[in-house]
Amino acid sequence: MKLVPEKVGAWLLGTGPDSEFVISTRVRFARNLAEVPFSPRMKPADGELVVETVRWALADSGYLNQGQLFTDGMLSEPDGFYFVERHLASPDFITQKNRKGLYVSDDETISLMVNEEDHIRFQALASGFDFATAFSKASALDEKLEGQLSYAFSPELGFLTACPTNVGTAMRASVLLHLPALVLTREIEKVLRGAYAIGLLVRGIYGEGSETRGNLFQVSNRKTLGQSEAEIIEVLTSTCRQIIDYEHKARQFLMHNLRVEVEDKVFRSLGLLRGARIISSEEATNLLATVRLGVALGIINELKIAEVSQLLVLVRPANLQAILGEKMDAAERDERRATFIRQKLVR
Amino acid sequence: MKLVPEKVGAWLLGTGPDSEFVISTRVRFARNLAEVPFSPRMKPADGELVVETVRWALADSGYLNQGQLFTDGMLSEPDGFYFVERHLASPDFITQKNRKGLYVSDDETISLMVNEEDHIRFQALASGFDFATAFSKASALDEKLEGQLSYAFSPELGFLTACPTNVGTAMRASVLLHLPALVLTREIEKVLRGAYAIGLLVRGIYGEGSETRGNLFQVSNRKTLGQSEAEIIEVLTSTCRQIIDYEHKARQFLMHNLRVEVEDKVFRSLGLLRGARIISSEEATNLLATVRLGVALGIINELKIAEVSQLLVLVRPANLQAILGEKMDAAERDERRATFIRQKLVR
Repeated sequence: MKLVPEKVGAWLLGTGPDSEFVISTRVRFARNLAEVPFSPRMKPADGELVVETVRWALADSGYLNQGQLFTDGMLSEPDGFYFVERHLASPDFITQKNRKGLYVSDDETISLMVNEEDHIRFQALASGFDFATAFSKASALDEKLEGQLSYAFSPELGFLTACPTNVGTAMRASVLLHLPALVLTREIEKVLRGAYAIGLLVRGIYGEGSETRGNLFQVSNRKTLGQSEAEIIEVLTSTCRQIIDYEHKARQFLMHNLRVEVEDKVFRSLGLLRGARIISSEEATNLLATVRLGVALGIINELKIAEVSQLLVLVRPANLQAILGEKMDAAERDERRATFIRQKLVR
Repeated sequence: MKLVPEKVGAWLLGTGPDSEFVISTRVRFARNLAEVPFSPRMKPADGELVVETVRWALADSGYLNQGQLFTDGMLSEPDGFYFVERHLASPDFITQKNRKGLYVSDDETISLMVNEEDHIRFQALASGFDFATAFSKASALDEKLEGQLSYAFSPELGFLTACPTNVGTAMRASVLLHLPALVLTREIEKVLRGAYAIGLLVRGIYGEGSETRGNLFQVSNRKTLGQSEAEIIEVLTSTCRQIIDYEHKARQFLMHNLRVEVEDKVFRSLGLLRGARIISSEEATNLLATVRLGVALGIINELKIAEVSQLLVLVRPANLQAILGEKMDAAERDERRATFIRQKLVR
């Protein structure tokens, strides 16, 4: 299997709209084949049939020419986590090994899991705050596959899924937001409660609950039934736009009222990243996120926001291992991570 | 009153023996005038007499040509603490204002307090581990003054002092040691207990008890009675030589066994000092002390040990205030301190 670890996905290039506030936008569809039992009742032969059917559909629709399909035995567990860290697969999918398939497009904007909870789950990722791109890419793949596969679909309910919470559009749309100023001003709870109240799900990524590392938050729809895809995206768009406005105001507040304190936090983080000889993934994530804020606020001019966003992915354990090309334990990795970060941040 | 805050004392030039381990060596004598009541029974006129008598003796012996005598009204309290931070006066002396005198030689190696606990207390400071220099300078002043003043002296007891703990030689000799490796390897307690057991006093400077900021320790004699000056200095010399050897071994141990961990600590400290926009005196002291270790170990090559030792004094509140030339509150000072340190550490 060939990974190109130093090359990050196109969705991480920091070129999308509102990149100061939004890392990426994602649209994911769940689909199941009409003639095959759903995952809880699936026999081994059923699983193999799904993998082969999807392989055929991806080949026929041209997607295999612009990406790779990894099937059983092609991905070691570390390689699998490499894709998890790149937001292209789910952790559960990687640890359950049999009759799986993972398609990843060359630019890493499209990925598809075969035999995760549903027969097929695929997503499109776009850089920045950009549902138009993410939705149209995911829909394009959906249409291609729909032309070749027969989906389990109910005229009343919509798409049928292994878990009832996904029935209907079977669509999960999400935005990955960087909200350090709302965290610093302690307004984040209020904002997140507001989003939840209108039917959205908000969670910190990298660590559950209150320990939201790096101040990165994912906002997604909770409901898939009773709303059209367009309605779901409309609600997410307007809500995230509002959250971005709040974050923008909080950043302005910080710059006007606590500028030195913010500069202190930002340059201390940069100083630690440049000084450390041993650094954990968790600490690196937090420090890089603070540096990302500094770049977004114009406090740090020598770095680009995309570089920092990319480092947030590259410093994670499986990606770092892939870059360095050797198997190592956590202690060695913490040393090599520090060296890697230092080299990337030298100016 | 004229302070030259950016110019540090000759004893801080880092030129003395064993400067990697020892900041400075000090010899202090307490003396009282035979015809004047000691401080607990002294009347205002007595105090004035002592000040004038000492002024005359310093002038006549030539010391006033190579230093300044500050008397009541010449030193504000902040200026007084400027000298305390430079190890040239005691804090109690500065806060008790009337009928005081403070003589400081131009190179800040000699200082003399009039009407502290005793009528006269004077000291000589030498750079590094150097009792020969400190003792001979203090003795030279002692002889000059002795020629002009009549000291309270008992043939059986020796020099008489306001507090019985100083009677005898009335000499306090001390070494200011930087012992970061013994602290890191947790051997410091054992070493300090050993020193105490043979009659020496060991205390962390900058903060009492367990909170020894900057890993700086002062070792001094507890007894002044029953031992000659030479004997006291001999015990201190051999004990400190042994402590230096322990510290040296501990540093070698760290470099052989925990090199990356030490480098991590050292370069993180340097990164924070170069990054911070707000920094307290306490944090700066701790970080600078770690950087000093890095320089001593050859981990940091771009700085000199003397620069770092000097910064340890210059970043303290009253010295910083004197350098910047304006009265400011603690919050402003923490900002200006960060800027000052950054400028000094730029390479």
